[in-house]
Amino acid sequence: MKKICVIITTRGNYAKMKTVIRGILENPDLELQLILGGSVILEKYGRILNTLEEDVKIDRVIHFVIEGENPVTMAKSAGIAVSEFSTAFENLKPDVVIVIADRYECLAIAMAASYMNIPIAHVEGGEVSGSIDESIRHAITKLSHLHFPATKDAARRIEHMGENPQSIFKVGATSFDVLAEENLEDLSPVLAYQKSSGVGAMIDLVPGKYIVVIQHPVTTEYTENLAHINETVAAIQMLQIPTVWIWPNMDAGSDGISKGIRLFREHANPDYVHFFKSLPIELFAPLLKNAACIAGNSSSGIREASFLGTPCVNIGTRQKGRERGKNLVDVVYDRNKIAEAIKQQVEHGPYEADYCYGDGKAGEKIVDVLSTFSFSLQKQITF
Amino acid sequence: MKKICVIITTRGNYAKMKTVIRGILENPDLELQLILGGSVILEKYGRILNTLEEDVKIDRVIHFVIEGENPVTMAKSAGIAVSEFSTAFENLKPDVVIVIADRYECLAIAMAASYMNIPIAHVEGGEVSGSIDESIRHAITKLSHLHFPATKDAARRIEHMGENPQSIFKVGATSFDVLAEENLEDLSPVLAYQKSSGVGAMIDLVPGKYIVVIQHPVTTEYTENLAHINETVAAIQMLQIPTVWIWPNMDAGSDGISKGIRLFREHANPDYVHFFKSLPIELFAPLLKNAACIAGNSSSGIREASFLGTPCVNIGTRQKGRERGKNLVDVVYDRNKIAEAIKQQVEHGPYEADYCYGDGKAGEKIVDVLSTFSFSLQKQITF
Amino acid sequence: MKKICVIITTRGNYAKMKTVIRGILENPDLELQLILGGSVILEKYGRILNTLEEDVKIDRVIHFVIEGENPVTMAKSAGIAVSEFSTAFENLKPDVVIVIADRYECLAIAMAASYMNIPIAHVEGGEVSGSIDESIRHAITKLSHLHFPATKDAARRIEHMGENPQSIFKVGATSFDVLAEENLEDLSPVLAYQKSSGVGAMIDLVPGKYIVVIQHPVTTEYTENLAHINETVAAIQMLQIPTVWIWPNMDAGSDGISKGIRLFREHANPDYVHFFKSLPIELFAPLLKNAACIAGNSSSGIREASFLGTPCVNIGTRQKGRERGKNLVDVVYDRNKIAEAIKQQVEHGPYEADYCYGDGKAGEKIVDVLSTFSFSLQKQITF
Amino acid sequence: MKKICVIITTRGNYAKMKTVIRGILENPDLELQLILGGSVILEKYGRILNTLEEDVKIDRVIHFVIEGENPVTMAKSAGIAVSEFSTAFENLKPDVVIVIADRYECLAIAMAASYMNIPIAHVEGGEVSGSIDESIRHAITKLSHLHFPATKDAARRIEHMGENPQSIFKVGATSFDVLAEENLEDLSPVLAYQKSSGVGAMIDLVPGKYIVVIQHPVTTEYTENLAHINETVAAIQMLQIPTVWIWPNMDAGSDGISKGIRLFREHANPDYVHFFKSLPIELFAPLLKNAACIAGNSSSGIREASFLGTPCVNIGTRQKGRERGKNLVDVVYDRNKIAEAIKQQVEHGPYEADYCYGDGKAGEKIVDVLSTFSFSLQKQITF
Repeated sequence: MKKICVIITTRGNYAKMKTVIRGILENPDLELQLILGGSVILEKYGRILNTLEEDVKIDRVIHFVIEGENPVTMAKSAGIAVSEFSTAFENLKPDVVIVIADRYECLAIAMAASYMNIPIAHVEGGEVSGSIDESIRHAITKLSHLHFPATKDAARRIEHMGENPQSIFKVGATSFDVLAEENLEDLSPVLAYQKSSGVGAMIDLVPGKYIVVIQHPVTTEYTENLAHINETVAAIQMLQIPTVWIWPNMDAGSDGISKGIRLFREHANPDYVHFFKSLPIELFAPLLKNAACIAGNSSSGIREASFLGTPCVNIGTRQKGRERGKNLVDVVYDRNKIAEAIKQQVEHGPYEADYCYGDGKAGEKIVDVLSTFSFSLQKQITF
Repeated sequence: MKKICVIITTRGNYAKMKTVIRGILENPDLELQLILGGSVILEKYGRILNTLEEDVKIDRVIHFVIEGENPVTMAKSAGIAVSEFSTAFENLKPDVVIVIADRYECLAIAMAASYMNIPIAHVEGGEVSGSIDESIRHAITKLSHLHFPATKDAARRIEHMGENPQSIFKVGATSFDVLAEENLEDLSPVLAYQKSSGVGAMIDLVPGKYIVVIQHPVTTEYTENLAHINETVAAIQMLQIPTVWIWPNMDAGSDGISKGIRLFREHANPDYVHFFKSLPIELFAPLLKNAACIAGNSSSGIREASFLGTPCVNIGTRQKGRERGKNLVDVVYDRNKIAEAIKQQVEHGPYEADYCYGDGKAGEKIVDVLSTFSFSLQKQITF
Repeated sequence: MKKICVIITTRGNYAKMKTVIRGILENPDLELQLILGGSVILEKYGRILNTLEEDVKIDRVIHFVIEGENPVTMAKSAGIAVSEFSTAFENLKPDVVIVIADRYECLAIAMAASYMNIPIAHVEGGEVSGSIDESIRHAITKLSHLHFPATKDAARRIEHMGENPQSIFKVGATSFDVLAEENLEDLSPVLAYQKSSGVGAMIDLVPGKYIVVIQHPVTTEYTENLAHINETVAAIQMLQIPTVWIWPNMDAGSDGISKGIRLFREHANPDYVHFFKSLPIELFAPLLKNAACIAGNSSSGIREASFLGTPCVNIGTRQKGRERGKNLVDVVYDRNKIAEAIKQQVEHGPYEADYCYGDGKAGEKIVDVLSTFSFSLQKQITF
Repeated sequence: MKKICVIITTRGNYAKMKTVIRGILENPDLELQLILGGSVILEKYGRILNTLEEDVKIDRVIHFVIEGENPVTMAKSAGIAVSEFSTAFENLKPDVVIVIADRYECLAIAMAASYMNIPIAHVEGGEVSGSIDESIRHAITKLSHLHFPATKDAARRIEHMGENPQSIFKVGATSFDVLAEENLEDLSPVLAYQKSSGVGAMIDLVPGKYIVVIQHPVTTEYTENLAHINETVAAIQMLQIPTVWIWPNMDAGSDGISKGIRLFREHANPDYVHFFKSLPIELFAPLLKNAACIAGNSSSGIREASFLGTPCVNIGTRQKGRERGKNLVDVVYDRNKIAEAIKQQVEHGPYEADYCYGDGKAGEKIVDVLSTFSFSLQKQITF
């Protein structure tokens, strides 16, 4: 049995790995090793441990995040992650480690695995974006032995960087698998969840009559994050549309973003906004599907929203260079422009679905490849 | 003043950085920050700290190597390196960090610097080789903002991987700068050094009448290193030519290599071999220049030896894919083939110099670029 | 000049070290080295960095707290503290390190200092309490070279444990120095601070008409902390007296305590409670002085309150075994008993001052000893 | 089943735990969890892993030693030990952790266990010695819940420090258990081992005609270790008696000791000395039993030698304050005095056995207590 080690460090990762985990569990040739770590186990970012534990056995829980949320603690947390994951790998002896996308700890995990001669399968490599994420993503590609890009463009870039074409499988975005499976019309579970979770006003969720805001910190704009979030806050204050605001991921700089959101909530105390720390993907999917618009800089505006046809206002540099569907409008950090763009997107209404980021079968394809692919530790650039 | 942080973790790194360090010290626009760490500060690998301290101020000494010399300790040492270097960077606040080549700690250093938003200049990227080194080298390239490849081929590969052509400067190998400057005819300092340093027989050093052996562990052949070194040992025992044997770098697996060499010394007690833990570049250069042949898998056989015209027998996979000069013959791990190849190279005598790896002015060129280059933290792949 | 290294890791530590820091700065024979770390630098526990930076130069800021707030992360944070403080000591080369009281990181700091052959002066050793704190406190005593207990009893215990009587100086509690110096009648700065800081109701602060609650987690009752805080919450809900509630220190288990307080605030939304993350000692002192009662398990109820004559209701096991003034009543974790005890203490009104914990001159005495004491690294038990 | 976690970090620890390990394995109420770490797994200190693996299952191998062997790396290694052992404890969930004696990593292990609310049983506490070891030993006592001192004096001291008398069991030294069981007359296995292990001359081992030397570094005399060992070396050179010299433990400062021994061997190349990195206790016991004298500063000269009646010359401060049998003579670091003392002891011949350090049944007694003792995490000083 091939032991496949899946590592979940954010709620987003879990959404991306859900069908992969299920596929591994169902495949008689594969054995799942599940490690949780980082924000996924921290209450303040919305604990999904409970959700997970119902489904599957968790092999390890790894703590590696040093408090402080600045560039030094990000680096130190990465260092601890290298060390802690190497202990886990030593004990679990996986045959393959799956590394997802481009967060700072993912490069740390890839480093630990590659130094320990364990093959790496990288999901969602090859994409282009602004900020340090892009450098991390490509560095992981150069350490990986098997690649599962989401799009044609991403696959092309991975090959162009010198990876063996036989090791590259364009599978689409895994996060769409759940979107494709679920009935996304019913908003009542989200309404119910509002009562027991998050803070702020209880808002009415009528399809096409509310918006969603998610704005993450931008690492390379560390000192400006507070100023940037304040522009978005001001725009939302101008519009006063019912709004579901989802808290950012932890990262160097989330202090600035968090502070801006917290001040907004405490001082303006807006009666048209509900704040969630996080939403399980089962609730987020119908919320996004039925939103009049998603604003901010989350990748879900670019990716999931294009698949669902939800209008998106993408703010600032974080998603620079990523492929965009027709559902998206870009704006700079300017309260007036943000407000204006949201207004126009709300008026436009839903777009047609765009499959450039995936068709909802990615997990299945990944598990197929994992069960048959024969890994070679020796890699060499192709040119 | 631009603060340039130079990090030396092996004796080889010091040789590579010597003219860069001198150039920074002489340039009124640049300030040197010097950090020593890892094997460079460990007596068992030959302490060069003393040598260094005469020349320049050392800003930090960093201990990060966990004893054990296996894949787990390599990964954990890398994790500690990330954490320790981030402390140093926080205190020293460099404007640029110079990362050299492809050792495991170099990716850790690059990770720390990039997560802390400090631009990285990478020396000797873009090369092809076997083993994990190559993956590390390319991953560092994807994290770096300025590139100083040694060869045309390496520069081409860095560009092909999507780095901005304006950030790539082909400068040649810095390690040749010292070779170009020194008088390499005089072997008497090496003879003198034999008396106070290393163990084994005192051997006569007549130009063209002795050979040099350096064989490093190959990380991805972790369990076979002892068997491989034994082939080389056997070949040397067949030839019984006066031999200078230089101890390997520490790395996962050097236990195997070290053990093989140690057993050779203790059991065979050969009267034709002197063993050095390391040699300062000032002594190594004339030794290599006047050797009848260099055997093993050190990059000096490929690079420095091609510049100097010294015949080389390259053993095994470690240098796979690297550009080769005319001075080089490849052999597999086989005692008879190794012995035969050395014999033929000794008979052939010196080759003509080949400048494919550098012309001896690399340090100068690097310092020129550093003093004028305007760094941008934001990177994006070019395709 | 003797270099005295003072390390502040909590707001409480800062209060305890304020006059010591001032004394060192004013003493021509001593040089201050100030290190901040842990919760003191984390916004969520109330950042005092800004306050500090106006006063004195900070030599190092050290991040060592791993997120998670459970026993594993407490242990791992301690491990990181050992490593990080040893780097700081290596660079700063202090002649003495001052370690305060009994928090988990204090033993880590003492370990780093003693392994590096740096003499340790321990403030507030020798006291008795429940929980792991006591073991930590005595272990630090056995690593320390100079002792500054607060009380006669504590001094006696340190001597009884085998420390050299010549190294023990009973100085009183340093935290009382500030109490002795300040005019504590004026509550208006606290009233003003309420508007800009903390959350909850704006409450009126009339001397003798409000209470203060501080309840910290008890490490050895890790799983019961939530249940215990709920008893206190219920008691406060019965009483509905104007209440200032101060958030607990971070520690394994503060998740349970924090959760209880947060649920209280979010669900009951009490109009008679204001919640502070922390209060600078300048504001806390008048607040405590004029309170009708302090309830919970903070040491300030035992110590500062006895000095000030403020009635105290001490809940549960955390302060077990500590010397008590006449101002204190002990109760178990029971809502009715807690409520009843608070009611009686409010009715009783202020007690007479009790100097068993100090006379307000501790800082001065400590600095005098530090400037003349001649340290010896060699220690031996006296029996 | 009570899970008892035994941690072996040196060859000496293994000797001390051998009968305890056997007793746990044979006791149906106890389950053994065995962790190896530190020098025990490093070849350069003599790998006992192989010996161990034949006997029992090893649950974890933990690497925590940072190369460098100076006070900073000792502190950092301790920090890593805290973190690594807490991971192991989290996964293995022991009911009791056994901590042995007083090495720097033992306090780290005790810290990890106590912060994780795991009861600690401490073997060989309460003793007096010079150097940092004593502080460490007493600090561990203050963190421990169950005490197994070797001597009456040690038991008295532990009680005097405030530990609960009910938690103190005087059991004797565990290391004597093996001595009591074995036939110690036969030196032929040691003679045979000489051929395959260690370096230097093959010396004849006639009872009463050879001496044993073991000198460890003294941490608080860090810079003088080289000078001190040179006195011993000089004394041995004067005497030229057949000598078995056993390499020191790793510790900050072993570089100095190791260097002195290495220089002796390489330059003097004495034909009357055989050097071992280490000796399994089965070989060490007969060697010591039949030696004319043991010289140096090893605790075996004080303890095992008194039990066996072997004359001892104890050099310098390392064993200051320990109980001594009649077999022992103390000398300062002075070549003439050392040589003279050894000469007299050789002439004296064997002493009578002295049971002050144990009667050879310690392991049995420890296992009995472990299987029935009911631990309480809550500790309080008794005065």
